[in-house]
Amino acid sequence: MFENKDQSHTSLDKIGEFGLIQLLTEHFKIYHKSTLKGVGDDAAVLDLTKEPSVVTTDLLVEGVHFDLGYMPLKHLGYKAVVVNLSDVFAMNALPSQITVSIAASNRFPLEALEELYSGIQLACDTYKVDLIGGDTTSSTKGLLISITAIGQAKKEEIVYRNGAKPNDLLVITGDLAAAYLGLQVLEREKQVFKVNPNATQPDLSMYSYLIERQLKPEARKDVIELFKKLHVKPTAMIDISDGLSSEILHLCEQSKVGCNLFEEKIPLDPQVIATCEEFNLESTTVALSSGEDYELLFTIDQKDYDKIKGNPNFTVIGHMTDAKEGAHLITRANQKIAIIAQGWRSF
Amino acid sequence: MFENKDQSHTSLDKIGEFGLIQLLTEHFKIYHKSTLKGVGDDAAVLDLTKEPSVVTTDLLVEGVHFDLGYMPLKHLGYKAVVVNLSDVFAMNALPSQITVSIAASNRFPLEALEELYSGIQLACDTYKVDLIGGDTTSSTKGLLISITAIGQAKKEEIVYRNGAKPNDLLVITGDLAAAYLGLQVLEREKQVFKVNPNATQPDLSMYSYLIERQLKPEARKDVIELFKKLHVKPTAMIDISDGLSSEILHLCEQSKVGCNLFEEKIPLDPQVIATCEEFNLESTTVALSSGEDYELLFTIDQKDYDKIKGNPNFTVIGHMTDAKEGAHLITRANQKIAIIAQGWRSF
Repeated sequence: MFENKDQSHTSLDKIGEFGLIQLLTEHFKIYHKSTLKGVGDDAAVLDLTKEPSVVTTDLLVEGVHFDLGYMPLKHLGYKAVVVNLSDVFAMNALPSQITVSIAASNRFPLEALEELYSGIQLACDTYKVDLIGGDTTSSTKGLLISITAIGQAKKEEIVYRNGAKPNDLLVITGDLAAAYLGLQVLEREKQVFKVNPNATQPDLSMYSYLIERQLKPEARKDVIELFKKLHVKPTAMIDISDGLSSEILHLCEQSKVGCNLFEEKIPLDPQVIATCEEFNLESTTVALSSGEDYELLFTIDQKDYDKIKGNPNFTVIGHMTDAKEGAHLITRANQKIAIIAQGWRSF
Repeated sequence: MFENKDQSHTSLDKIGEFGLIQLLTEHFKIYHKSTLKGVGDDAAVLDLTKEPSVVTTDLLVEGVHFDLGYMPLKHLGYKAVVVNLSDVFAMNALPSQITVSIAASNRFPLEALEELYSGIQLACDTYKVDLIGGDTTSSTKGLLISITAIGQAKKEEIVYRNGAKPNDLLVITGDLAAAYLGLQVLEREKQVFKVNPNATQPDLSMYSYLIERQLKPEARKDVIELFKKLHVKPTAMIDISDGLSSEILHLCEQSKVGCNLFEEKIPLDPQVIATCEEFNLESTTVALSSGEDYELLFTIDQKDYDKIKGNPNFTVIGHMTDAKEGAHLITRANQKIAIIAQGWRSF
């Protein structure tokens, strides 16, 4: 995890916009030959002529997507990048460049933005992507981060949401619901702290996996590399940012298929199960509707099953059907329940 | 100019994020074969393999960059796109795709966002660019627009800020300071309206050029096409978004040259001169320091002078010198004054 630093305070209006961009970006490395010109002109110049590109963008708003009460700025910077890269991986592509724009109110001193950018830089170094531009400006309230990520893939390797066929297997990476429960734990501790600011630092070690999934999620670059190694090309893929049920419905709608999802197959970490019990939450409901897992949900032809069988990264959680059969959850009691979108909504 | 529409009110939380994106983007046309997949998957897919790409991004914040008190939402959408395209043109490139992300507080009903997107769509149609993606989310306060633009140019045609040489001519397109004065006029009328909301609609026809430059600026696509026709490649170029003095200093610093700028050559519209007198402003100071003109500032080798001579789009306003001579304004009284950055700062 990241360390916290003492923060001194340099007001942003002393530096000016151009000085600020330079200060914040001067230590970033360039990893890709395709980055001909990064920060410092009217636009970055990229040589994206080798293969098709993918482009995705996300906007994170303080008070809507994050709470600086428990999200350290360095983690926030890291997570903001990861969220975007996850969308690139969901196309079976590898990211190469990002732009980062921020709007910050005058309550943020230079040192706060440096902390934010140190997280952005760590993500760039971890995932080998180049920061090629952005915009920094003031806001009238709070902090806002807008990131656009660019990646590449061979045309025949790009995976869309619309390629799933009846009888394809529905597969998920990792496990679900931990990020949401991490948020619940952090929210509870924040309330406790509000009531009693002098309480001893709580022992959160029993929730460590949950909190790490909330504060420092990773995107599944390893899975994209694994697909190449295993010679697997999913027929459809999406990343799980808004909840499993919502993402399954996207795949079904765009691929014009139905699906059967088996409750007993949904992968949950033991900390998730224990914390659901503690919070009196139904773990399947949480797994279906909670967001921010940044795992990949994909479909494969049944003939590819042997290639992924037994791999600890993958869990087969169901299979696709004809569209007219609809999308259903098959419960442990063998009941068939229609899946409805319960995912996270920002409005 | 644009017409206003009566607005009915549909709350955003009734629609949800996915329905909203579909509603707002379904009428956009695709102009470029390079857009293989636009809105609707985890990422857009682009074929940018023909020539190098340029990428630029801008963030516009309510209360910092615009005031909805006098900026109609349709104009705002149009301007937000134009601001970004201007940066693409400043690289001597032509834009092809944009992503648009917005954060809007719950005071904005669906109809307001539709109005905003109708301006974005008009800009896309006017400049022939494809909307390929974006993000819509709620904000805790106000409206925020983040746009990333992608363009292309042959490698040998890309113009950076750093190619100016001593003795190159310093040239500007169009004229300066009108957008800033348009803002001053609108601000004044807003104050008048605050004091007396029942006053008759003011006659602003004498400021029509100024107001149009503020509310509906255009980016100089025509100039980039003209360069090709005239076989002119600037040695350095930048767009004028933050004021002439600031942009000149960028060219000088990055090209490692100085310059002499002649006050008498700075192109000003008669409405600018008249309104400066009315507001008791010194027109040269305004021209040097006011932003949002979105004209192009560029340098050319003296041998190219005959190609641009007499063209009403271009005004030679000075020439570059050795770096050690510094950057100076030569006044009408033949005084030599060091140019300092006075441009618009968002912090």
